[in-house]
Amino acid sequence: MTVTIDDIDAAALRLRGNVRQTPLLSAPLLDRIAGRRVLVKAECLQVTGSFKARGAWSAISALPKGTPGVLAMSSGNHAQGVAWAAAAHGMTAVIVMPADAPAVKIANTKAYGAEVVLYDRAIDDRDAIAARLSAERGLALIPPFDHPMVIAGQGTAGLEIAAQAEVLGISRAEVLVCCGGGGLTSGIALALAARAPGLRVHPVEPQGFDDMTRSLATGTPQRNAASTGSLCDAILTPTPGRLTLPILQAHAGPGIVVSDDQALQAMTLAFQHLRIVAEPGGAVALAAALFSPGLPDTVICTLSGGNVDPALFTQTISRFAG
Amino acid sequence: MTVTIDDIDAAALRLRGNVRQTPLLSAPLLDRIAGRRVLVKAECLQVTGSFKARGAWSAISALPKGTPGVLAMSSGNHAQGVAWAAAAHGMTAVIVMPADAPAVKIANTKAYGAEVVLYDRAIDDRDAIAARLSAERGLALIPPFDHPMVIAGQGTAGLEIAAQAEVLGISRAEVLVCCGGGGLTSGIALALAARAPGLRVHPVEPQGFDDMTRSLATGTPQRNAASTGSLCDAILTPTPGRLTLPILQAHAGPGIVVSDDQALQAMTLAFQHLRIVAEPGGAVALAAALFSPGLPDTVICTLSGGNVDPALFTQTISRFAG
Repeated sequence: MTVTIDDIDAAALRLRGNVRQTPLLSAPLLDRIAGRRVLVKAECLQVTGSFKARGAWSAISALPKGTPGVLAMSSGNHAQGVAWAAAAHGMTAVIVMPADAPAVKIANTKAYGAEVVLYDRAIDDRDAIAARLSAERGLALIPPFDHPMVIAGQGTAGLEIAAQAEVLGISRAEVLVCCGGGGLTSGIALALAARAPGLRVHPVEPQGFDDMTRSLATGTPQRNAASTGSLCDAILTPTPGRLTLPILQAHAGPGIVVSDDQALQAMTLAFQHLRIVAEPGGAVALAAALFSPGLPDTVICTLSGGNVDPALFTQTISRFAG
Repeated sequence: MTVTIDDIDAAALRLRGNVRQTPLLSAPLLDRIAGRRVLVKAECLQVTGSFKARGAWSAISALPKGTPGVLAMSSGNHAQGVAWAAAAHGMTAVIVMPADAPAVKIANTKAYGAEVVLYDRAIDDRDAIAARLSAERGLALIPPFDHPMVIAGQGTAGLEIAAQAEVLGISRAEVLVCCGGGGLTSGIALALAARAPGLRVHPVEPQGFDDMTRSLATGTPQRNAASTGSLCDAILTPTPGRLTLPILQAHAGPGIVVSDDQALQAMTLAFQHLRIVAEPGGAVALAAALFSPGLPDTVICTLSGGNVDPALFTQTISRFAG
């Protein structure tokens, strides 16, 4: 089972008119702070506030006719993407979410019409809950990243980056992508390898959750020691996907690691200079673009989600925009 | 002296590749709150954080060769637009700003390379200061709204709205535009009258500063009683422009008035559901789209600027997103 550029092109056709082509933003004053040209693929402006709408729509629109509904396990952005896409397809969506997920993500998932089943990360077996629900109700599982149609959907962001870079006359750049399980990163890497081979993808991860970076460096799948402990809730997956790691081994790397504080500073600068709202996990690639040494003159980064709890956002802005 | 659709088309050619084509955003959960379909022309994503970059570029790019520099009087968004556009044209920019303008706007204007001259609204004669500087240094005045090339530049946002509405299959809608002196409103009204006559423009103003609404209702130019007292600093002009009022009399109205609190609520909902940053004056049209009675099923509104002081933004989100 693999994913090809043809799968991404086919997903782009299914997504057309349903998900948004997001802009590639920049700001002169942000470039000055970065010391380089920074172009931001603003997926926080995507329907449901993150790139996850792409993969969810791609997977759900490819299901066999008559599928009674879908099931997803997610701390939030995938949940909202699946809930929204299922509703638009007239399907039931059941989302299994950790009870400590950001309140805004739980509330929005319900608002899109999904049935939310909460579990306790410390006690419950999420996979067992999901397996039972899936079997009982005939629901199709939509995995968060390790699924060809999900990766193909996220790859449509890469098609857009390739086209937008071409309009700007950019044929060589580093492309930094916020990385959890690697769905967005591998999708973009596949798209760029086919359509803009001078654009090289690097996964960006939070400190302590750099499983993909270490997996690429060592050549074997690595696991994170902790499962919580970063504000970047959207991208705290334990280990790379079985599909995503080989794609990144072929087409991307090395990875870049940033601190939570750098992600919060990137959120603040995105607020001040791009006037967009980022969540911590959605800001790690911008943090790398701003603060990592050794990057070239032109960097493209994803800002992959904006579903942030208001209290965390205002605390962050108050702390860093003083 | 008038402005035509040909002027707007010519401005669009001069602007191409220099200002951004901004997206028309929407969100299912925002539509549910509004009880109608709301499409948001996100000019906060424009270069310099407001639509003012359009008019500034249009006017400066149309100046005679050899013009030594430009002068503008502005509390902030026009200031930043002119400072940025002048720098990109290799010209000096001198900006006369009230000392009580939002700190972020003064700081950004300087950061774009302009020379900022502060004055005291209560004591100083702004026009006299500007006239002296202009005469002494041979600077061309770029007015904030009452200038054909400025109106033509703002009208390019209307060309984009017409094209974006057509893609969405929308041929009839009300278009609500944040209105100070009426530059953006009249530019959009002219563009839509020529290219999408089913889209009808309405200026939106803050309570107490509804000079345009009253001028359209009475047929004669009206003046605001106060010059300060609203958070909507970007749109507190005393009276309609000599060019802008006749254009709106021909192509727009009636006006809509919203409260400061409604503008702050609209800022909060834009943060939560569109993940964009609005300033109060930039959010009045969204406030009208959300809260005004008697509007039809589909409404397009401008979100015209996002240059907000961080403290005001965090207070607003804390107050309304609790």
